[in-house]
Amino acid sequence: MKYSFKNDYAEGAHPRVLQALLETNLSQQPGYGLDDYSLQAAELIRNQIDNPTADIYLVSGGTQANLLVLSAFLRPHESVVSADTGHIFTNEAGAIEATGHKVHGLPGTDGKLSPESISKLIEQHQNKPHQVKQKIVYISNATELGTIYSRSELIALYEFCREREMYLFMDGARIGHALMAETNDISLGDLGKYTDAFYLGGTKNGALLGEAIVINNEKLQPEFGFHLKQKGAMLAKGRLLGIQFQELFKDDLYFKLAQHANQQAMKLKAVFTEIGCEFLCETFTNQIFPILPERHIEKLAEKFDFYVWKKLENDHAAIRLITSWATADDVVETFSNEIKNLK
Amino acid sequence: MKYSFKNDYAEGAHPRVLQALLETNLSQQPGYGLDDYSLQAAELIRNQIDNPTADIYLVSGGTQANLLVLSAFLRPHESVVSADTGHIFTNEAGAIEATGHKVHGLPGTDGKLSPESISKLIEQHQNKPHQVKQKIVYISNATELGTIYSRSELIALYEFCREREMYLFMDGARIGHALMAETNDISLGDLGKYTDAFYLGGTKNGALLGEAIVINNEKLQPEFGFHLKQKGAMLAKGRLLGIQFQELFKDDLYFKLAQHANQQAMKLKAVFTEIGCEFLCETFTNQIFPILPERHIEKLAEKFDFYVWKKLENDHAAIRLITSWATADDVVETFSNEIKNLK
Amino acid sequence: MKYSFKNDYAEGAHPRVLQALLETNLSQQPGYGLDDYSLQAAELIRNQIDNPTADIYLVSGGTQANLLVLSAFLRPHESVVSADTGHIFTNEAGAIEATGHKVHGLPGTDGKLSPESISKLIEQHQNKPHQVKQKIVYISNATELGTIYSRSELIALYEFCREREMYLFMDGARIGHALMAETNDISLGDLGKYTDAFYLGGTKNGALLGEAIVINNEKLQPEFGFHLKQKGAMLAKGRLLGIQFQELFKDDLYFKLAQHANQQAMKLKAVFTEIGCEFLCETFTNQIFPILPERHIEKLAEKFDFYVWKKLENDHAAIRLITSWATADDVVETFSNEIKNLK
Amino acid sequence: MKYSFKNDYAEGAHPRVLQALLETNLSQQPGYGLDDYSLQAAELIRNQIDNPTADIYLVSGGTQANLLVLSAFLRPHESVVSADTGHIFTNEAGAIEATGHKVHGLPGTDGKLSPESISKLIEQHQNKPHQVKQKIVYISNATELGTIYSRSELIALYEFCREREMYLFMDGARIGHALMAETNDISLGDLGKYTDAFYLGGTKNGALLGEAIVINNEKLQPEFGFHLKQKGAMLAKGRLLGIQFQELFKDDLYFKLAQHANQQAMKLKAVFTEIGCEFLCETFTNQIFPILPERHIEKLAEKFDFYVWKKLENDHAAIRLITSWATADDVVETFSNEIKNLK
Repeated sequence: MKYSFKNDYAEGAHPRVLQALLETNLSQQPGYGLDDYSLQAAELIRNQIDNPTADIYLVSGGTQANLLVLSAFLRPHESVVSADTGHIFTNEAGAIEATGHKVHGLPGTDGKLSPESISKLIEQHQNKPHQVKQKIVYISNATELGTIYSRSELIALYEFCREREMYLFMDGARIGHALMAETNDISLGDLGKYTDAFYLGGTKNGALLGEAIVINNEKLQPEFGFHLKQKGAMLAKGRLLGIQFQELFKDDLYFKLAQHANQQAMKLKAVFTEIGCEFLCETFTNQIFPILPERHIEKLAEKFDFYVWKKLENDHAAIRLITSWATADDVVETFSNEIKNLK
Repeated sequence: MKYSFKNDYAEGAHPRVLQALLETNLSQQPGYGLDDYSLQAAELIRNQIDNPTADIYLVSGGTQANLLVLSAFLRPHESVVSADTGHIFTNEAGAIEATGHKVHGLPGTDGKLSPESISKLIEQHQNKPHQVKQKIVYISNATELGTIYSRSELIALYEFCREREMYLFMDGARIGHALMAETNDISLGDLGKYTDAFYLGGTKNGALLGEAIVINNEKLQPEFGFHLKQKGAMLAKGRLLGIQFQELFKDDLYFKLAQHANQQAMKLKAVFTEIGCEFLCETFTNQIFPILPERHIEKLAEKFDFYVWKKLENDHAAIRLITSWATADDVVETFSNEIKNLK
Repeated sequence: MKYSFKNDYAEGAHPRVLQALLETNLSQQPGYGLDDYSLQAAELIRNQIDNPTADIYLVSGGTQANLLVLSAFLRPHESVVSADTGHIFTNEAGAIEATGHKVHGLPGTDGKLSPESISKLIEQHQNKPHQVKQKIVYISNATELGTIYSRSELIALYEFCREREMYLFMDGARIGHALMAETNDISLGDLGKYTDAFYLGGTKNGALLGEAIVINNEKLQPEFGFHLKQKGAMLAKGRLLGIQFQELFKDDLYFKLAQHANQQAMKLKAVFTEIGCEFLCETFTNQIFPILPERHIEKLAEKFDFYVWKKLENDHAAIRLITSWATADDVVETFSNEIKNLK
Repeated sequence: MKYSFKNDYAEGAHPRVLQALLETNLSQQPGYGLDDYSLQAAELIRNQIDNPTADIYLVSGGTQANLLVLSAFLRPHESVVSADTGHIFTNEAGAIEATGHKVHGLPGTDGKLSPESISKLIEQHQNKPHQVKQKIVYISNATELGTIYSRSELIALYEFCREREMYLFMDGARIGHALMAETNDISLGDLGKYTDAFYLGGTKNGALLGEAIVINNEKLQPEFGFHLKQKGAMLAKGRLLGIQFQELFKDDLYFKLAQHANQQAMKLKAVFTEIGCEFLCETFTNQIFPILPERHIEKLAEKFDFYVWKKLENDHAAIRLITSWATADDVVETFSNEIKNLK
């Protein structure tokens, strides 16, 4: 079977995570997120983001986290603004609309939003009460294109939201990879300070499943647990999530795994650059989008699995390669040699 | 007070409609749309559109008609495709999303959709089941820009929908004006044949309120009444709607009123053309969008009310003028003189 | 055709209401509830209920009013408590649930709720966050059984809601009849003071259609207009509602009409009492529920229309008779004679 | 720490389940339920229930399974009928209503529904289209009270649903325990034949998490996957569920675990019976509800955790004891001795 660079959730969990599940298996615990492990994981996260009053909820996946947060925070006539590459706009089967809310998809630059673009959208929605009211700005970091926000971009968006009485919510399915990118200048403490809510993705960074929703804004905290139950997101054995996040955040395992994934991607990027490749957009995380002639793509596809992301002119296309905590050095080496052989 | 060209719902109802309400006032009737007048109005409409098996429901307004039809016809994971100028996309405060469904806003040409543009959207949504499924095509005729569909355009969309197992729904808030436009070649019978559902707008064409929803597709007819009740759209005194539609469709009053509105708009259009004006888009219905220097707009605004629709370059802007069944000849004459004086 | 006592919306509107529509017909007005008449009607109502800061919204019908208020006031995990005879629990095709909220139906006494019964329900829902949170108490006055709340019962419910951080909402589809009942001791000012929101029903008391939603609680007022638009409840020609409510509240017409309806019902009640009839429940409004042998019911049904409300033992049943502003003296007299002839 | 009989999800997973996760951990697999393990698990289940055309979907939990199935199968105006002890009626924070549907709670006998009780409810909802339409019958087996349906009861409900054009859906969070009860006469094949859909609960029977939704009725199968994605129920690493269900259904592990749980409960039941206890209802599954004097309850609570389920007269109460696959013999023995000492 071919090795797959299609995504970062092809394997199970990091061995330490599985080991933690084994060790705690027969301890009797309360259900529904009140187990010791979940409580301790929450405390670890609060410390890491330097926000002692944050509320933490552990849930199964990213779409679930997005729909929980957005439907809990929005009143019926309020909408959410996303880049048009945003996961909630394109790839969640209408999950947000199913909770009753419009998602605006703004053409972004490299998958990112700016106060200017949001401001323009708001200006076009001043015919009250005939038009929805924009209330939440949704950003992904890393984005769906592998790009990341800078600290100043994050603060600018947060301050914009403050001025407009809006909320800033960050989809952190790949926040580990974003924070460990060599070009990143956002700290964990910034996440605790310059977002109203965000989540730390586990599924794509070493866990079997799990995203840790963090609600910084105290006004948005009350009664959030009801929403988890109502949307079917509250696991009876919440311990399953607690144990994993406790392990991941115990001694920076989470960040080491993300760093490993990034490094493997950067190795591949270097080789593509070496042979003169261009990229759809420049990334420093675990996703790269090299542009290749189709015959080269076919050649690589003989031994490896990956997505052809975008057809381009002159028989070229961008492919998407994703690495993970599980991407081994020998695989990277083999693939690198294949790339070099393309010339 | 200044005369207003802002919209076609500034006055009450055509005198004949009020007279019909007076004459029937004390007749006791069943509630909830089962009165004699509603039944007779439905029969009149079925005859006019030449579809004896159509189901007819009379409701209060356009947004209500749109949300009723779309939420009743769509399953939870299905979406509706609209032009990005479509009323459901821009001006209904998220009414369709509030029933759980995504609305796609496609950049249109003069407010219209084509099979090509829809086809491209569908191609971008083939990652099943991660993306919503497009199931209904929503068009407005006349459009929000005053333009109309030709018969061949309508049939092309209908056949496209058949091929793709989609439904075609026409927002007919201004269908009277569309059908009476001098360039129109769509007949009432075409509406009964080449749409799955549509509605005949009363509010903007002589009624106090009311839109007549017509469901042609028999597969979509069962149990639609439940949706009316559930969405608060079933009037206890359904007679109010029945009496008005009966009067409007008795001897073509509906079409005469629309024709009058169109003619008044065309008179103004002719005068603007005479003085060398261009228009945002060419229309033959009761809406015109002449482009004027701002100082001319200010001059006109001294004596008349209208919307400045779109700022353009070089201190120009397009204004929107709407006429109605109630726009009198002397008003048109006075305004025409004002236009001529602009030079 | 038989005269019908089936409901209080069988005729059109009171002649003065129609006359007002005629007189104002050609005045040009802004749309969507911003017309002079709607603004003046709101002012009249604020004066009557002695609450200068109340927000008033005019909408088409009762189910619409109920779903608007409840969906706007409730967060997703909150529910509404109703008597199990309440209109929202039994007769709105799931309108409230369709907006996402559970309706609890409590067995009431004569259609009414008490703090005790609600209190018990709340006690059974303390398994947080696994159970919905009761947030609104919904009462109808007059109730669906024609009974009314006393002032002390109203205040007790309001104070209970204050203590529990809940809201009290009154469905006033027949509030006129309740206030004009001979046993009533609630004033209009009490409605402005001891409810968070309520509505004044027009449809069943002389209007063609229309209910006036009154929001007393200032915390619940912001941005309510968006909900009207989103739910398809905002009429383009809002004037239609404004003109009617202005006329009804101008010189107590509203209350005179309700009083007339009550008096006609009380005349019938007296005759039934005279011949020894019992009633399903004692009422002083425009609904009575006399209990009769089935052969008597059949006899009455030969010349009059009414609902058989409830089958009882020994070939008896309760029938429901409703009178209205339009019930004429001669009809009451003829029917009274029929009753007397039953013996 | 005290041993807990509070529920059957206090521990992690059966060791064989964890072992399977370990062994498969580094195999690369497609995401979203398309992995080999999920496909094989589905095949195993189809064989077990003897329905080769059944569709199988693995999801995280019971509330999620319930809301997915009910919202996918119901049109907006349709409702679901449950016993008033049903999980969807009392303990899911309004999850079903949040998808827009009314849940009727019928007073049941020992937590069960019968055609008679449903039939009566339907008769009370014939005022169409003013009342919701009952479309799905929801039953739990074992019920929330530990009782089970007999084969003839199941078939009677299924045939009732066929006649009324309704669907029968079984919540099988504890279906293993039901099928292994000594009084049970329902087979796995019956589930594949006499329900439209049901699920096999993993969370309460040896898995870390997971319920296997089985859709028998082919009319209800199309496009169900979209609903999983839209409701946030589609795990990126669907393998986590597939591996567990494959292990549980490989050689009847699932049934052996349920049998073990039942046997432990029956041992406790025997001891309570021995000392003359009565029970709230008679059960043969892993839940028992003995009635004890409060001083005995206090005594037992010194060393064990359990819920006091229902206060009764004369200082008595029923307690709930739940056993699981993990309840060891020595715990049962110790607790049995405590019970005997109560005398």
